Order: sequence, then structure tokens, then C-alpha cells
Amino acid sequence: MKIGVIGLGYWGPNLVRNFIAQPEVSKVIGCDLQESRRSFIQKRFPSAELLADYNDLLKSDVDAIVIATPVDTHFKFAKAALEAGKHIWVEKPFTATSDQAKELIDISEKKNLKIFVDHTFIYTGSIAKIKELIRENELGEIKYFDSVRINLGLFQHDVNVIWDLAPHDLSIMQYLMEDSKVAGVAANGIANYSDHENVAHLSVYFQNNAFAHFHVNWTSPVKIRRMILGGDKKMLVFNDMANLEKIKVYDSGVEMKTAEKIHQALIQYRIGDMYSPKVVQTEALNLGAKEFINSIMENRLPLTNGYDGLKVVKILEASEKSIKNKGQLINID
Amino acid sequence: MKIGVIGLGYWGPNLVRNFIAQPEVSKVIGCDLQESRRSFIQKRFPSAELLADYNDLLKSDVDAIVIATPVDTHFKFAKAALEAGKHIWVEKPFTATSDQAKELIDISEKKNLKIFVDHTFIYTGSIAKIKELIRENELGEIKYFDSVRINLGLFQHDVNVIWDLAPHDLSIMQYLMEDSKVAGVAANGIANYSDHENVAHLSVYFQNNAFAHFHVNWTSPVKIRRMILGGDKKMLVFNDMANLEKIKVYDSGVEMKTAEKIHQALIQYRIGDMYSPKVVQTEALNLGAKEFINSIMENRLPLTNGYDGLKVVKILEASEKSIKNKGQLINID
Amino acid sequence: MKIGVIGLGYWGPNLVRNFIAQPEVSKVIGCDLQESRRSFIQKRFPSAELLADYNDLLKSDVDAIVIATPVDTHFKFAKAALEAGKHIWVEKPFTATSDQAKELIDISEKKNLKIFVDHTFIYTGSIAKIKELIRENELGEIKYFDSVRINLGLFQHDVNVIWDLAPHDLSIMQYLMEDSKVAGVAANGIANYSDHENVAHLSVYFQNNAFAHFHVNWTSPVKIRRMILGGDKKMLVFNDMANLEKIKVYDSGVEMKTAEKIHQALIQYRIGDMYSPKVVQTEALNLGAKEFINSIMENRLPLTNGYDGLKVVKILEASEKSIKNKGQLINID
Amino acid sequence: MKIGVIGLGYWGPNLVRNFIAQPEVSKVIGCDLQESRRSFIQKRFPSAELLADYNDLLKSDVDAIVIATPVDTHFKFAKAALEAGKHIWVEKPFTATSDQAKELIDISEKKNLKIFVDHTFIYTGSIAKIKELIRENELGEIKYFDSVRINLGLFQHDVNVIWDLAPHDLSIMQYLMEDSKVAGVAANGIANYSDHENVAHLSVYFQNNAFAHFHVNWTSPVKIRRMILGGDKKMLVFNDMANLEKIKVYDSGVEMKTAEKIHQALIQYRIGDMYSPKVVQTEALNLGAKEFINSIMENRLPLTNGYDGLKVVKILEASEKSIKNKGQLINID
Repeated sequence: MKIGVIGLGYWGPNLVRNFIAQPEVSKVIGCDLQESRRSFIQKRFPSAELLADYNDLLKSDVDAIVIATPVDTHFKFAKAALEAGKHIWVEKPFTATSDQAKELIDISEKKNLKIFVDHTFIYTGSIAKIKELIRENELGEIKYFDSVRINLGLFQHDVNVIWDLAPHDLSIMQYLMEDSKVAGVAANGIANYSDHENVAHLSVYFQNNAFAHFHVNWTSPVKIRRMILGGDKKMLVFNDMANLEKIKVYDSGVEMKTAEKIHQALIQYRIGDMYSPKVVQTEALNLGAKEFINSIMENRLPLTNGYDGLKVVKILEASEKSIKNKGQLINID
Repeated sequence: MKIGVIGLGYWGPNLVRNFIAQPEVSKVIGCDLQESRRSFIQKRFPSAELLADYNDLLKSDVDAIVIATPVDTHFKFAKAALEAGKHIWVEKPFTATSDQAKELIDISEKKNLKIFVDHTFIYTGSIAKIKELIRENELGEIKYFDSVRINLGLFQHDVNVIWDLAPHDLSIMQYLMEDSKVAGVAANGIANYSDHENVAHLSVYFQNNAFAHFHVNWTSPVKIRRMILGGDKKMLVFNDMANLEKIKVYDSGVEMKTAEKIHQALIQYRIGDMYSPKVVQTEALNLGAKEFINSIMENRLPLTNGYDGLKVVKILEASEKSIKNKGQLINID
Repeated sequence: MKIGVIGLGYWGPNLVRNFIAQPEVSKVIGCDLQESRRSFIQKRFPSAELLADYNDLLKSDVDAIVIATPVDTHFKFAKAALEAGKHIWVEKPFTATSDQAKELIDISEKKNLKIFVDHTFIYTGSIAKIKELIRENELGEIKYFDSVRINLGLFQHDVNVIWDLAPHDLSIMQYLMEDSKVAGVAANGIANYSDHENVAHLSVYFQNNAFAHFHVNWTSPVKIRRMILGGDKKMLVFNDMANLEKIKVYDSGVEMKTAEKIHQALIQYRIGDMYSPKVVQTEALNLGAKEFINSIMENRLPLTNGYDGLKVVKILEASEKSIKNKGQLINID
Repeated sequence: MKIGVIGLGYWGPNLVRNFIAQPEVSKVIGCDLQESRRSFIQKRFPSAELLADYNDLLKSDVDAIVIATPVDTHFKFAKAALEAGKHIWVEKPFTATSDQAKELIDISEKKNLKIFVDHTFIYTGSIAKIKELIRENELGEIKYFDSVRINLGLFQHDVNVIWDLAPHDLSIMQYLMEDSKVAGVAANGIANYSDHENVAHLSVYFQNNAFAHFHVNWTSPVKIRRMILGGDKKMLVFNDMANLEKIKVYDSGVEMKTAEKIHQALIQYRIGDMYSPKVVQTEALNLGAKEFINSIMENRLPLTNGYDGLKVVKILEASEKSIKNKGQLINID
């Protein structure tokens, strides 16, 4: 299999390195308009070919094209690649609008090509372990999902902090709560230093009695990356900043009492043991590359496909409308 | 000075103990309909007098009445006390509606009586130290205020988690950001186990370019009580669950670059030293009692007065409307 | 049952309160030469009787005497009490020398009186849980026991930091490792500010291939109270400064490989899950008082008896000899 | 300048990479008997030359030789290199005995060649910052130095845990406390799984009234790397496992009271603010390489030279004698 990579900036070299390392890949072609980026790749990875013009890549014999460019160019490159008969890998977020995402999905289905959206956390040992616990019904029904991702972070010029940071958390939420359908979105926040919000809070309502909230911030003095999953059997905390014991499962929760004790509190809580399962350390990007290659070879949807990308983009799009209207609820079909 | 205390349940014994310990107080009269509560106080504090009927307390010679009953009865007892010529101390939140708060303030002013609202955190060493830092302009202008108060907590029967927990954080926010005027409120959340929300997120917009957010939750497996104040000079984190180093001041922040470097990022961040000031450990309730007594003796408004109580009640009231309408913005005059 | 308490200083009031609260106790008599201490008790506990002279207490009809005086007076009061036919409760450490401990044990046995040594940690929920795990063989054979108890602490005038702090940890170690017999002791440390060491390290060798180490320090800027138990099946960490999750059990350890893989490392390690069992919160002093009373009523040795006190005193005594000789090994019979 | 590297195993590739990156270095020659290691280097660093026999390296025109082989071979390679007129860089610990270290120092002085011992922590931003604080007399006189380095770690076949882990901490101690002269050493510990101790405690006595202790352990379920420096002005904690705030300086300490208050405690403690200075992140190995090159070009002793290496080896050697005699004090001249 031969792979092209468009965009050799920040993340591109990691993508080139990972695809070169896959045994099924015989050639990797990098593509970027900037000469300095191409020569950087050439030096580090002498086996890579390099091109300046992406049209040359489209005409080449690569089987798949990896798109690692700014989000507002994803659609243009992705559409051209699909029309040239190439499978595509797109960095998060999938597209700048849900209409773009839908159009790409349509083309890929007509041409039986694969779309892989790089929701990279799905391929980490931590999220795989949490998914396994949920599949085994350790947590019961998830009542709420609470996510915090805050830091002193690089301001983006073109998007706000939700578009920058929340795709990670939204893709995790969609993966872990795949049976809960999103009903609507409300977003609040503030832009202190530019036109784009640097602090934001995103509430997500579901069609069942569940709720999710996402706190993202580029201007926090402390770095917090933590999720709480409130199950009706057990509760789980995922602290991605911990060196060890990233996942803690609490045998704690809320208990409804029967009517006999009606004069006392009807709702009580219970605290039990906690355990922290061992998490396998792997490089998510390597597992993602393998999943992309396998989905092509087995002619099936990859684990993080265009539909998953579309779901995230829908929420991002709605959040944008909501935050411009100070938290107005935006329904999602 | 003689003090009456109405409501000898959960918090009442602490109030009785604290007022007995004040040198200016010559007598404390407790008042509760339940005989068991009265005898509990009698045993522990033999010097206290006890009454069952609050009308008897109104007719007594006490100078001030402390109201430690459920919030929906605050107005009734407070109004009766003021009309009987007594100064009042009211537990948080001040009243169930802003109209009630205004009416009590009116009466107190006409009769030159003091209203003390027990925003107890204002009297802790931690909040006093943070206020001092803000007064000395250590933090610069506060751009955002972020508060989290979550735990496995006792469900209240009559109110949701915002009315139960947020008054602490709202009173702290009002105290620390007294120059920023609240413009509007949006609240989101979910009621998983009863009619009252057990998870809630409250966004507060200010008339200047500041923003605050409050996360409260009765159903979290982990106990977090943390505030972040994003100043444009320095940033502060207050972790009330830490045994030591509760307050950390970060010489970190966002820097705007001049136009010369326009092709690079214009907004960058800076990380410097951190320091954690020593905090004096005192019993907040004792300091509050002294402030109440002094405000009466000096004929001045106490530090946490009816106006402060009203401001908090206005936000709570607006949050209730907002959360019932999935985050609709409610303006505050 | 009637109880006398000699020594109403720092810890005495807690002892009086606890014994008054026991349903089997009909009278508590406090005894102290200082009038201010007696009147303090009289005010707080009106039901207590008070005496100045301990000879009057010996002549009274109390069944048992609690000794809460400085350690160098333990023997005098304890011997007098036993000779007057009273059961005794002695604060830690039991006595100032092992000869004193042995003499008290002898008298108690001849007169069939009970000696309770207040190794209070043995009655905490945490140590009870750890003991339970060891009984169930969760940890396997304990290879090493490592204890740290450091803080900015009050200097004692009469003893060094080992005599002050280590009795807690030594009594825990003896309780948890009751099958391992101590062979010898080596202590190192320094006295920076007085004649008594403020930093000390105590190594304990056992007759089997186990080892224990105790680090105590009055002059540490950070407060650490942590024990590690290295079992050959699992390992346990007890962090007494944690608000929650004080006990963590690690399914980690060392594995010996068979000779087949001889060219590789023969000793490897394994990392697995961790769990933190729920610990019941109780007042240790209350459970201790109940155990003392029950041991008298059931005519049996209490859980923390004179023999346990003697074992701890032997190690303390040996540590004193060793530290004065810069770590010389002192054998224990 | 041309550099040779003997030993291309675990650490060798990092050394090759770092010397290639130095602008003053025109050629790097790697040397190892194992063909697989040579070809690994050849692939990753095409500019490197490679040799199998170290005699060929001795005969080459390299200016300096880096020795990254097991400790028992350090002397042989180092002596041969010096005799061939090459400067040397030796990995820690310098040599297997203090006599070897002395002999190498002698040769280097006669031939005016440089010995660099790779005490790598000396070149980290954290230790540089602590040294700066000590130079500025922030801490006052250091009364005690307490170091813990424990983990589930790889057992070494040829040495115990002190020889494996303590050289890091001993070199840091020597650097930070250069004015305090070591007087003697006592070591205790246990070998649970092989002939070599896996748990060890090392006490170091100084000629002034200072004391140091080192706790090293290959079989701890938790990873702790922490040093406490007890100064008589301030105290410092260095937690190398923290992602941020690795260094904390406590304005806390012990205060001696004058004789007037003689009836009260004469020694008290004081707790003040804490601060955490910003630490510059740099690659220690890169800074070390620069120091080595500069010391050669400027014909001066490097910051971590043979004398520093010798001091550490003396303590290691003494610890070995002591631990085999259960903590017997071994004097150091």
C-alpha cells in the first residue's frame, strides 16, 4: 500500500513516521508547498518521496491520502482525494461544516472509499479500557459525562477554544455513550483577548435522561484533563494528567429508598471500594494507522469513520451558534 | 447583648455555642418546636434558655435574632423579628425570592436594624487572603472566575443543587469581584433522581468583559472544591480540599504581542514562579459573630449584609428560570 | 465500672470524655495536681469527680486507672495502681525501660489484673482493614515494612524524636507482622537543636528475611505519614495524610524467572491493577475504651496488652543505645 | 574535535546523538563488539564511524573517549584511553573502587587530560536552580539532606540498589553541600531476591553538625523521587516526579527562643509562605557535553570531574562494607 500525506507542519512528521513503520506500506509521499518542511522530512526520513503540488499527489499511484492541514482546507483536499479514487484520513475536526461532512460521506459511499477521521484518543489504552468497562456494564447507565480540558494553551487564529480542544472530548463522549442520542447544545463563554472565545462551557442534552458538559480553556494557570462518568451502578474518573492510576472506578453512587422510609431522605448515597485498572501503554497513532489500513484491506468502516466525524462537527457547529447567542439552546436533529 | 436563635437543628448548636462564647453576649435563648432539640442544647449548654414558641422569643428582651431554619421560612421569621425591633442574622441563602429580600431590607432601613447574612466563607482565612491579594492588585483585572463544588452530597427535598451549594460560591464571587456588575445568567443541568437538578452549570455574564462559571453536583464520586481566578496580571487557584497550600498564585498569563511579529502568533502565554501565601486558620463562625455584634454596636452595615444577600438571591432566582428553559439567558437588572 | 484518670493535661480530657460515654461506666474520677486542669474538666464534664492527690484515687473504689502522664512517671503510677488492685490503661510508650515493663507485667499476672497499652492506631479503621487483608493473605509474606512520619512538630524536652513518634509505627508494625520476630536494631540520626535527635532513621532486622525501616523527623517542612508493605504477592501503601483512598493495594511485585531464560534478567517485575478498599471511620479512642472494658469483664488479655507494650519499649531502648553509637547494631533477644 | 564512544548499548545511542549535535565536534566514532549495536547506530546516525575493537579507537585521532560500559570495566577502558592521550568522559559511577579512581586522576594530572564523570543531574534545570538558591543563601546552613529514590525497578546482576541508584543522589548531595565534609557512612538493608540488596538505607555523617540519608529501593509499588533540604533559614523540597512545581521553598523552620521563656518550650517552629520557582527545561546530556568540550578547550577542570567521581565512589565503597556488617559505621578520611 502507498500513502500520501498532505501537510507536513506540526503533526505531519509524526504521520509520515508512523506510516513508514507499517509493514503493509511500501511507500510514503509527503506533500507541502513549503520547501523547508519538505527538506526537514527528507533528512529525517530518507525513504520518503516529496512533492510540492498536491495535484501531483492526486495523480500518483498512492492508495490513500492523509490530510493534516488547517480545518478550513479539509473539505477541498478530501473531496479532491476521494474524486481521484483515494481513501482518506482526515485530522480532527473532520470538516468546518456538517454539510461538508455529509458531502464527503456521500462521495465515499458511492465510490466505496474509506474515510478515517483521526479521533486519536479512541486509540489510547485509557479510552479502550473505559469502553471495555462500559461494555461489561460495570458503570450501569451513564447519567452524566463531565469533561474538563484546560491549560495555558496556544491561541488559534481561526477558531475558538471549543473548535480547538473539544473535538477530543466530544469524540470520546460519542464513543463511550454511543447509545445516547444528542438532542441539543448550549454554549457559554468569553473572548477576553481576541474575537475567539478562550474560555467556554458546552452543555449537551440527550434524548434520554442524560447530560454532558465540556469545559475548555486556553487561559488556565493549571493543566487539568479530567472526565467524570456518573453511572447509576458505579462512577468513573479519568485523569489524563496522572502519571499512573489514570482511571479510577468508584463503587459509589446514589440509592433510591423505598416508600416505607418516606419520612426520611428518600435519596441517599453509598461509598464503597475504588479500583484502578492497569492501562496498556501504546502509541495511539500507530494503532490508528493499523485500523485505517485494515479497514481498507477488509473493506469495512474504520472504527473512527466519517459518521463519527459528522457527529462531532454537528455539535461544534451548534455550539458556535449557541455561544454567539449567550447559551441559546440549539437543537440537533 | 442578648441573642435568640430560632432553629436548633443541624447548624443551630454551632450558632448557640459561638454566641455564648462572645464576651459581649450575656444571654442566649434557643427556640425550636421540637423538644428533643431543646433538651440537646440544654444538656450541652446549661447556661442557655430555651423556648418552644418563637412568639415568646419576639416578646423577650433579646437584641438580635439568629434565623437558622429552612430557607422558605426565612422571610416569615425575619420579618417578624425586624417588626419586633430585633436585629437579624439569617443563614444562607438570605430568602427564597428577591422580593422578600428587598422587603426585609426596606424594613431594616426604616427601623435602623442590622441584617447579617451568613455568607460564612467571607470570614475564612483563605478568602480574606485572596481579597487582600486582589486589593493589592496582585492579579490585575479578573477576566474569569471558575468555581467547582462537587461531591457525593445529601439531596435536599425542597431545592436543587444550585440553591443548596452555589450560595457559597456566589457570595465569594460577589465579594472578590465587587466592581464587576452582573448582567445575566444561564444555567444548564439535569435532574436524574428527583424533580430537583443534581448536576448544574451556571454561567454568569458581567457588564464588563468578565465571565464566571459555577459547577455544582450532588452525585460526583470525587470531592472537588476549587476556584480559579484568571487575572490579566497573575492567576490564582484556591483548592479548599488541600490540607495545606490552599491558595496558589501563578505569575503566568496571556501576553499580547505588538504588530511587528504579525506573521507569528499575536497572543502568547508566559509561565513564571508560583507562590502559596500562608493562610491564618480561624473559625469563620466566630469572626462572623464578632462582625455582627460590632456592626450593631457601631451602627453600621455588617460586611455581609442584606444587599449582599439580595445579590446572591437574584442570581439564584434567575438560574431557576434559566435551568427550567435549558439555559435561556436571564438578564439581571 | 468506675474509672480513674491520672493526668488531665493534653490528652486527659479526651480520655475522660470517652470513658464517660461508655454505658458500662458509672463514674469517672479525674486526678491532677494542677487546680486549673481539674476545674477545666469540672466545667466541661459536670458528672466527673475530681481529686488532686493520686493516693486518694488509689484508695477509692475505682476498678481501673488510666495513666496519661509523662512517660518517666508511667512506672510509678502503674505499679501503685496494680498494687492497689486496679486494672491499668497506660498511654504510649508503655514504660521508660523494658525492665519496668516486665515488672508491671509480672505484678499484673500475679494479681490477675489487666494492662492495656494505648497503641491507639491499632483501633483505627485503616489499620483494622490492613490487618484483615494480611489475615486473608492478600499480600503474601511481607518482605519489608517502610514507615515515614515527618512534620514540623513540637520538640519534646525529655526524649528524642524516636521515643516521641516511632511508638505509633512500631506498634503498627508489631501488630501487622506479629509472626516475624525482631532480631536487632540500628538507628542513625542527628540532634541539630538540642541534646535530643530531631531527625532519626531506625532499621529493624528480623529473624526471617524481612526488614523494617522507620523515618521520624520533627523538622520537616512537609507532613508525610506513609507506610509501604512489600509483600511477595501484593504491595500496600497506607497514606494517612490522604483524605480518601488512604490504603492502596497494588497487584504488583517481583517475579523470579526459571533457569531457561538464564541469559536474560532472572528477576523481573510485574504491574497490575490497584484497588483502594473502603475504610470505616470510627473514633479509635472509643473502640480502645470498649476493648479495655471488655477485656476486664471477659477476664482476658486486651488486644494491646503489656506484652505489646514491652515489645515496643525493647526496640525504643535498643534504638537509644544504637543512635548514641552511630548506628551500631543492638541485638534483641 | 573528534569523539569516540565505547559501549553502544542502552545509553550509548544518546551519547552519540548528543556529541554529533555539538558544533565543535567534527566526527564521532562508535565502538562496540556487538555487530547489531554498531549497525543500529549506523542506520540512525549515518555520519558516525564504527569500530569493533577499542584498540583501533585508541590508535585513532579522536581527542576524547566516552566510556559507557558496565562499571567493572570503567577502569580498564579509562586507563587505556588516558595512556593513549585521550580526554575521558565516564558514566556514573566513576569506578568500582576508590583506588581505581585515584589512579585515573593521577594519570590525568600528569598528562594534563580531562576527566568528566557523567553526574547527569548536575546539568538539569532543577538542580541548577537549587544550587542557585543555596549560593544566594536562601536556605541558610543545611542541617539535613533527605533523599528517596524508590520504584519497581530493574534488578542489576552485578551490584546492589545503592550502587545502581544512589550515585545520582550522592552526586547531587556533594554538589549542593560542597562545604560539608563527609565523616562516615552507615548502611542497612535487605536482599530479598538475590545476593544484592534491593532495599537500602544509607546514613551519611558530616564533620559539621549535618546529616544525610538516602533511601533506595527496587521493589516499591510507588515511584518516589524526592529530596528534602532542611536549612536553618528555609527548607526546600524537590519532587522530581511532579510534572510542575518540582521545587518548593518553605519559609518554615525551627526557632530557638531565649532563656526568658525558659519554663515554656525553648524550641518552636514557624510556618510561612511557600514558593515554587520556575525551572528551565533543558536536556542535561546536551549541557554536559558542552561542559566537557569547554573544559578541554579552556584547559580547566569540568564541573563534574574525577574528584567528584572519587567522592561518590568512596561513599559507595564504604556503604558496601557497612551493609555487609548490618550498619557498622565506616569512617571516611
